[in-house]
Amino acid sequence: MSDFAALWAEIAAVGRASSGGYLRYALTPPELTLREWFRGQADRRGMTVTEDGNGNLFAWCDEPWAPGTVLTGSHFDSVPHGGGYDGPLGIVSAFLALDRIGSGRKIAVGAFVEEEGGRFGVPCLGSRLLTGAIDPARAAGLRDRDGVTFGAALGATPAGPDSRLANLSAFVELHIEQGRALETPVGVGSAIWPHGRWRMEFAGAGDHAGTTRMTDRRDPMLTFADTVLAANEEARLIGAHATVGRVEAEPNATNAIPSMVRGWLDARAADTATLDRLLEAVIKRATERAGRDGTELSVVAESVTDEVAFDTGLARRLSELLGDAPILPTGAGHDAGVLSAHLPTAMLFVRNPTGVSHAPAEGATDADCEAGVEALARVLESLT
Amino acid sequence: MSDFAALWAEIAAVGRASSGGYLRYALTPPELTLREWFRGQADRRGMTVTEDGNGNLFAWCDEPWAPGTVLTGSHFDSVPHGGGYDGPLGIVSAFLALDRIGSGRKIAVGAFVEEEGGRFGVPCLGSRLLTGAIDPARAAGLRDRDGVTFGAALGATPAGPDSRLANLSAFVELHIEQGRALETPVGVGSAIWPHGRWRMEFAGAGDHAGTTRMTDRRDPMLTFADTVLAANEEARLIGAHATVGRVEAEPNATNAIPSMVRGWLDARAADTATLDRLLEAVIKRATERAGRDGTELSVVAESVTDEVAFDTGLARRLSELLGDAPILPTGAGHDAGVLSAHLPTAMLFVRNPTGVSHAPAEGATDADCEAGVEALARVLESLT
Repeated sequence: MSDFAALWAEIAAVGRASSGGYLRYALTPPELTLREWFRGQADRRGMTVTEDGNGNLFAWCDEPWAPGTVLTGSHFDSVPHGGGYDGPLGIVSAFLALDRIGSGRKIAVGAFVEEEGGRFGVPCLGSRLLTGAIDPARAAGLRDRDGVTFGAALGATPAGPDSRLANLSAFVELHIEQGRALETPVGVGSAIWPHGRWRMEFAGAGDHAGTTRMTDRRDPMLTFADTVLAANEEARLIGAHATVGRVEAEPNATNAIPSMVRGWLDARAADTATLDRLLEAVIKRATERAGRDGTELSVVAESVTDEVAFDTGLARRLSELLGDAPILPTGAGHDAGVLSAHLPTAMLFVRNPTGVSHAPAEGATDADCEAGVEALARVLESLT
Repeated sequence: MSDFAALWAEIAAVGRASSGGYLRYALTPPELTLREWFRGQADRRGMTVTEDGNGNLFAWCDEPWAPGTVLTGSHFDSVPHGGGYDGPLGIVSAFLALDRIGSGRKIAVGAFVEEEGGRFGVPCLGSRLLTGAIDPARAAGLRDRDGVTFGAALGATPAGPDSRLANLSAFVELHIEQGRALETPVGVGSAIWPHGRWRMEFAGAGDHAGTTRMTDRRDPMLTFADTVLAANEEARLIGAHATVGRVEAEPNATNAIPSMVRGWLDARAADTATLDRLLEAVIKRATERAGRDGTELSVVAESVTDEVAFDTGLARRLSELLGDAPILPTGAGHDAGVLSAHLPTAMLFVRNPTGVSHAPAEGATDADCEAGVEALARVLESLT
């Protein structure tokens, strides 16, 4: 068994649901188990573990926050019933890369909290807190579906930004590729598409499904449904991505016209202007339909992330180092995107044969994961 | 305070949510509280309370199941965040009607379990069990959203049909009217539209919302949305009612294309042929769209109820007794519809000024409720 396969097997069962996917919400038992595992890996390698008061964990080969340290790592949390590679692959690969180049360098491994936003709604919450991109009081008040706040789950109000971040000389995040864009085992990231999530609330009039005349209805499910189709059509028209993957109806009863339907729009495009145009077109069509249905629409931006271009020179250098590895953008958000505003940042992608992500079919071959570890080791070696 | 207002106030707070609507699911604490209240009301009037082994409660003025007994009553359970009148009005009115005509007659008051199907998915579950319209083993295995079975909630496998039902000479259910069809305080029911609920499962391919190309997707939310609109259009075209009030997506994450969306279709029409045509048209359009989306559709009938015509002679007699009260059909299912296949059955409706039902705005004036009590008293008097 390869060193990758052996270490991977240690965490493969943690948080795995009967669907084959993972339920590793931030700060819930499966993710806490993975954090304990992280501490164990650090101990085994003589590394010092610190927490930053925001829920992020760091394991340091040298002094914590020593100037010139290169940070690598990713996150443990998953989307509900997501794959096991999105996040953990970057952390497992980091420890294995250290095994190849020794731990006598200024390198740290990080595990960021709530990258997916799967529990508290704001993705990259840990890296946003660390960099000051979100107010700690607002973050503390974010609630999960059971009403538990992030502050309560963390056990404290988040500490917020840490000025020692400036001591880091680079951040390199290795991640599973999430589409079918990569045809070699390893690639280098160029940019993250601008993207965001908008909560669309459609308010109507709850009533009896059997006795209310069709002409008397103000049914928000109709407005929601039309908006789902509109978002898909508009995104196709302008070459963007739009998805409505989450929906909630109230009271959500078979024999009641809903009083409220909430849908979350995930939208992404290659540039901000296109994303803005997409959102405008979707809201315009939703508003028109709401007028016909007698319903009311409100839209709240839960998170919007501008385009991120990773350090171009660094990306080119790493590509050369890795034998002209392909350089490619991604439609997915990452902690690397948040950190890139503060220090030189790069991403390495490992090929994903199915192209599937955020679902159980997400995966990579052991051979490609080994190639990812080797590439990360070469990169960390060259940066330290 | 009128006797109606006083008795109504005793239960008005039970199971009331902050929405103003009620959460009185069958066999949950609020509904169990109402059952205790029912026993107290029976005791106060010297009535004997029995359970039928199916979750239905009966309070008898005379010997339980004495030949010639007239049964009245309704149900306590609500749809989620429904109004407080749908069901309880018939039980409160029954006790008050007895107060007006005395309890020296062969009259019983019933409280049927799980009329709405709001917890276990099959409406009129208690009356179906009592009449043998559903297999007790199947009923025992029905699960609520938390996986609890009806058998477990009941504490036993349901007893099933009771041959003593044939001893009853009539069933009269008083109920709030659920549309805007009644312009006098009290009306008499003629028929219940044929109706049913169908669970439509749209299966697609779960994937990442950001990285999956639009052309690579098999997104079941699109098929669901198109079907919601198709059901509405087809129902309007043929003068029927169609509603999709309940939806569930998996994994229901903002940044994941769903792998599965379930939608429940509630459909009703004035006659069975129209209802059949409606369902056929909706499934045809859903199947076409599924073909375009690369998704798969399956449809399961959770319950289908044929048209019910109440005893015509009895309805005419009661209308005359009540000063030519209007005779009208309803689009809503009722335990009276189930029982009507086994004994002479009638319904009395009390005017609903908003026309809203299954939502907090459902209501009736105290004066109309008093008129309902008086009408029920006259009807019970004339039938015993």
